[in-house]
Amino acid sequence: MNRFYKKYIVPPDTRVSLAKYDPDDTLDFKDKEAGLELLAANNRRIARLQNDLYSEGKQSLLIVLQALDAGGKDGTINNVFAAMNPQGCRVQSFKTPTRIEQSHDFLWRVHAVAPQKGEIVIFNRSYYEAVLVERVHKFATPAELDRRYLEINRFEELLAGSGTKIVKFYLHIDKDEQLRRFVRRLKRPEKHWKISSNDYPERQFWDQYIEAFEIALSRCSTKAAPWFVVPANHKWFRNLVVSQILLQTLESMNIELPAPSVDLQETRRLAAIELSRQRHEKKRLKLKARG
Amino acid sequence: MNRFYKKYIVPPDTRVSLAKYDPDDTLDFKDKEAGLELLAANNRRIARLQNDLYSEGKQSLLIVLQALDAGGKDGTINNVFAAMNPQGCRVQSFKTPTRIEQSHDFLWRVHAVAPQKGEIVIFNRSYYEAVLVERVHKFATPAELDRRYLEINRFEELLAGSGTKIVKFYLHIDKDEQLRRFVRRLKRPEKHWKISSNDYPERQFWDQYIEAFEIALSRCSTKAAPWFVVPANHKWFRNLVVSQILLQTLESMNIELPAPSVDLQETRRLAAIELSRQRHEKKRLKLKARG
Repeated sequence: MNRFYKKYIVPPDTRVSLAKYDPDDTLDFKDKEAGLELLAANNRRIARLQNDLYSEGKQSLLIVLQALDAGGKDGTINNVFAAMNPQGCRVQSFKTPTRIEQSHDFLWRVHAVAPQKGEIVIFNRSYYEAVLVERVHKFATPAELDRRYLEINRFEELLAGSGTKIVKFYLHIDKDEQLRRFVRRLKRPEKHWKISSNDYPERQFWDQYIEAFEIALSRCSTKAAPWFVVPANHKWFRNLVVSQILLQTLESMNIELPAPSVDLQETRRLAAIELSRQRHEKKRLKLKARG
Repeated sequence: MNRFYKKYIVPPDTRVSLAKYDPDDTLDFKDKEAGLELLAANNRRIARLQNDLYSEGKQSLLIVLQALDAGGKDGTINNVFAAMNPQGCRVQSFKTPTRIEQSHDFLWRVHAVAPQKGEIVIFNRSYYEAVLVERVHKFATPAELDRRYLEINRFEELLAGSGTKIVKFYLHIDKDEQLRRFVRRLKRPEKHWKISSNDYPERQFWDQYIEAFEIALSRCSTKAAPWFVVPANHKWFRNLVVSQILLQTLESMNIELPAPSVDLQETRRLAAIELSRQRHEKKRLKLKARG
């Protein structure tokens, strides 16, 4: 198990206090360069493993990405998951539920887009919103919320039981970093469309969000579906942590290429017949051309 | 319009004869190196345009990939589309229809996975199988087939009418190249799982497949959804052609970043308030620390 995995995992039944996690943490990496180099190497290995997972077609991987606004979910996807073959890799975003979705339980729309065998699926936000934003804004009663943590754990166990590996990343920035990122967006016209009228009002709920995350991480980090707290003030380090844990996870899956579905000997025989047919045909055409 | 686009497009109402397209064509490119360099440059531009398309959220792009077995659909996806951000790019494979799917019209399952606004979707095989494999093996009556070309054209017009740009690529290899690729797979154990017991039997229908493609290309290359014949014996050139046409297509879409959805002046005011609050807080903490 690599040290990233070990350091940032939330062990089951831990009472998480996010104040103990430094969003500026970069382990012993002195500079960005070393981090970027390792990330590039990881990306190559991840791409190979993804290819094998897709070929194997027996297991799947679900990645849950959660963060406060400007926490870096999009950036993580573009830097870590862009290395993947889009065939077999899918990003699923969750917006405000539609009317039909609201008329079902909160896991209904999620279940419909769960990974198929062979797939890697990234949830950009997820069913955890039902215990984060809905907790902070009291859209759900305490009893409902209480039930949801249990329902989430059971849902994740269901997926895990049928061959889906699950890893969940909370990208941890602090309140100052969020403000810096908001201000940076204001200076870059190509980012203006990303600015939401909710950005500043939601900052008032910062402490409540942190508390909601702490409860979710404490109650829903399980063996079947562990949470990781990723220091995310430094984007390069955030990407590196996610890629390291991803790599470790894929390696732990013991992916095996499937046995050939055909009789190879028979196929070789057919190929030989075809090759000789091809040679004959070429000879015939040559002779014909000469007259 | 770049020369690739112009040269390989099937103009509407053309009677296509694939014998006139050389699968070995590499235009005036002398070597692979120049091709790979241009491909890398294209990929960077495509990635930027994809990002803008996603941000804009008003149009979408549908790419249809069709070819005979070993024609290079998977390879094209991995080399051209891997450059994209998986967020906003989706690959849709079409396998043999399930029982539920069979109990609907042939476009039903396709419509369900059509691109959302902002998305680029690649169909790895497509509804064209209904006039290719189903024509060759006579799974559909002549009258049914006849109707399907029209239904396809109308379906594509429907999508185009609501903001979906459509480009369709037929990857053109010859029968010898297919055999070379089959034989190569036999030599690479990691490719063995890809070998199908259908490979050699289906080769017997080569001419019928070519004819089915010719009819589909002739009847379904429209202004709204043009077909392109891509010389595909040389993988690097195939990738280059697809990327050039893709780039041309994205550039023709006049993608515009959306206007900010918030009052920027008001947002700047809120940011200023937050920044001063942050400064005060830091000062307070410093004073407190000094006692």
